[in-house]
Amino acid sequence: MAYGLRLAERGRYTTSPNPRVGCVLVRDGEIVGEGFHARAGGPHAEVHALRAAGERARGATAYVTLEPCSHVGRTPACAPQLVEAGVARVVTAMNDPNPQVAGRGHAILREAGVEVTEAIAPAAARALNPGFVSRMERGRPWVTVKLAQSLDGRSALASGESQWITGEAARRDVQFLRARQCAVLSGIDTVLTDSARLNVRLSADELGIAGEVRQPARVVLDSGLRLPPFAAIFDAPGAVWIYTRDANEGVHHEALLKREATLIEAPTAPGLGLDLDFILSDLARREINEVLVEAGAKLAGAFVAAGLCDELVVYQAPVLLGHQARPALALPEPSALVDASRWTLVDETRLGEDLRLTLRPAR
Amino acid sequence: MAYGLRLAERGRYTTSPNPRVGCVLVRDGEIVGEGFHARAGGPHAEVHALRAAGERARGATAYVTLEPCSHVGRTPACAPQLVEAGVARVVTAMNDPNPQVAGRGHAILREAGVEVTEAIAPAAARALNPGFVSRMERGRPWVTVKLAQSLDGRSALASGESQWITGEAARRDVQFLRARQCAVLSGIDTVLTDSARLNVRLSADELGIAGEVRQPARVVLDSGLRLPPFAAIFDAPGAVWIYTRDANEGVHHEALLKREATLIEAPTAPGLGLDLDFILSDLARREINEVLVEAGAKLAGAFVAAGLCDELVVYQAPVLLGHQARPALALPEPSALVDASRWTLVDETRLGEDLRLTLRPAR
Repeated sequence: MAYGLRLAERGRYTTSPNPRVGCVLVRDGEIVGEGFHARAGGPHAEVHALRAAGERARGATAYVTLEPCSHVGRTPACAPQLVEAGVARVVTAMNDPNPQVAGRGHAILREAGVEVTEAIAPAAARALNPGFVSRMERGRPWVTVKLAQSLDGRSALASGESQWITGEAARRDVQFLRARQCAVLSGIDTVLTDSARLNVRLSADELGIAGEVRQPARVVLDSGLRLPPFAAIFDAPGAVWIYTRDANEGVHHEALLKREATLIEAPTAPGLGLDLDFILSDLARREINEVLVEAGAKLAGAFVAAGLCDELVVYQAPVLLGHQARPALALPEPSALVDASRWTLVDETRLGEDLRLTLRPAR
Repeated sequence: MAYGLRLAERGRYTTSPNPRVGCVLVRDGEIVGEGFHARAGGPHAEVHALRAAGERARGATAYVTLEPCSHVGRTPACAPQLVEAGVARVVTAMNDPNPQVAGRGHAILREAGVEVTEAIAPAAARALNPGFVSRMERGRPWVTVKLAQSLDGRSALASGESQWITGEAARRDVQFLRARQCAVLSGIDTVLTDSARLNVRLSADELGIAGEVRQPARVVLDSGLRLPPFAAIFDAPGAVWIYTRDANEGVHHEALLKREATLIEAPTAPGLGLDLDFILSDLARREINEVLVEAGAKLAGAFVAAGLCDELVVYQAPVLLGHQARPALALPEPSALVDASRWTLVDETRLGEDLRLTLRPAR
């Protein structure tokens, strides 16, 4: 199963909106077939493994990182195909997180006389697909908030100068972080001020994938529809989705539609701009599993303050910008230290001169 | 020599104001004596090693982490003693950093027919004694500025609440950091507000040393002589040195002398409080090798801004205090990013939930 999990990870930049899944077929202690899901619309991991095994699948044990699907989607269901191929036993790392179909894959296998061992490594399997699991279980994407800051927690000088605080290695790492996402989200001010394009600028070779680079959707929160159709974001590949208060309001509305931007109306939350809960639910409906927030202090802080940040990735440069520089995060102050927003550091990694800190909300 | 350096390190909490030194005597491929300097006034490393070796020192090679001393101080000079014991060869890791005596120890040995190999590991040997080397070469102590801050660079809520941002493991680590110092320096506001005692609260057992715990001098920058004689700092062991504008000025002046505080007059720097250059020179004259600055944002920032911070130790807690909380460091903003204060991260270590970052000024 450990090998299956590693295989699944190979789909990290490409399976969206599908989950990353790996499958290993073993007969008489020998691997007779293996596969991972690479792209939505393409064969599932089980099918790759069955094809590789051919007749040797008969009597084999299939190790699958996710309960095999029971429903016909863009491709035929996997559970019946495992039965048909004569697989004797199926071991899964986790159950299907979709509450509407969970258990059906396992049931189909059992009814056909296949021995089933369920969910032997749920933590590792869930970690492969935090976004898919989140979308299925919570109806919203997995939200990662990225910050690039100085040692003293600043992201720009008071003048606004911010390019660059972190070094090349850190900025390259952000590209890999982006490439995993289904969507990259920012606010209109950042998009305008930084001429942000928010796309993945790595090649398929650099990502180690076959085929074309999948661009995450670029999501802009723009309540007043100020994004001009000549913004830099349109010069880079990938869909642009704009959440706004009134899609017919702004002067650029027609021109934006011509640039193939998707305009989506969102309600406003009192004093907080657009309603983030609504937007996350809507992104889930649009099959966004994982979303990266690369925004200014205010919007990034709003995600954190609302408890909507599942992971904080902080690129910290060993530089001091001084107490008058702009904070990387605007966050209301807690009334006492015990009420402060506490996190758990899950990883620290050096990237050139900088440090990447990955944190999750403390329980 | 590597072993000698390790031996020397055993004096890290006790040798002040002397340097940490280790010595290993080897004859016919066998260690016949070893020692380290433990306390000022006690035997030097070479003497410990010679005593352990006895007659077996004759014809041996002595590996010493610092050029043996040529002058009689509180104890007899080491170089002649090595000669007298019949040591055949002396290998040193670094020269004496005191420009007035550098080379004399080596010369005495050579003149007596001892083979000398000089300064084979200067970087490692200097790292053992950054403070002693700094005092000899630059006439000022090695300055470490300690910060305890949140992930967003804050050291207290706007209300002033700051206890505690970091966890127990980090705070215990600070005790070991203090124990290495000759002096711990703070400002009057911190001493008053936090009832800071600035002493070492570890036992000799916890420090792994023989004999009593050596307390660093507690240095308070108090231009207006506001420190009251009943301040908490006097309840803990260790000398208290107060730098002030006019030692006869404050209302507490007599009472402070009764509490055995040392009052030292220092000039003021325009707009910056007391003159930090003067204070550091004065501390060096008082045989302070290493000083730890544990101060508020303003004073810590003044050391950094003046280029007087040799090492920054940041205890960073995975907590967010918000943009209205108090910055850990008050530092004037650079006019452009290229002029920002850049550092090199030399170490990152997890301490419980927190991270300790050690940085040096970037070259």
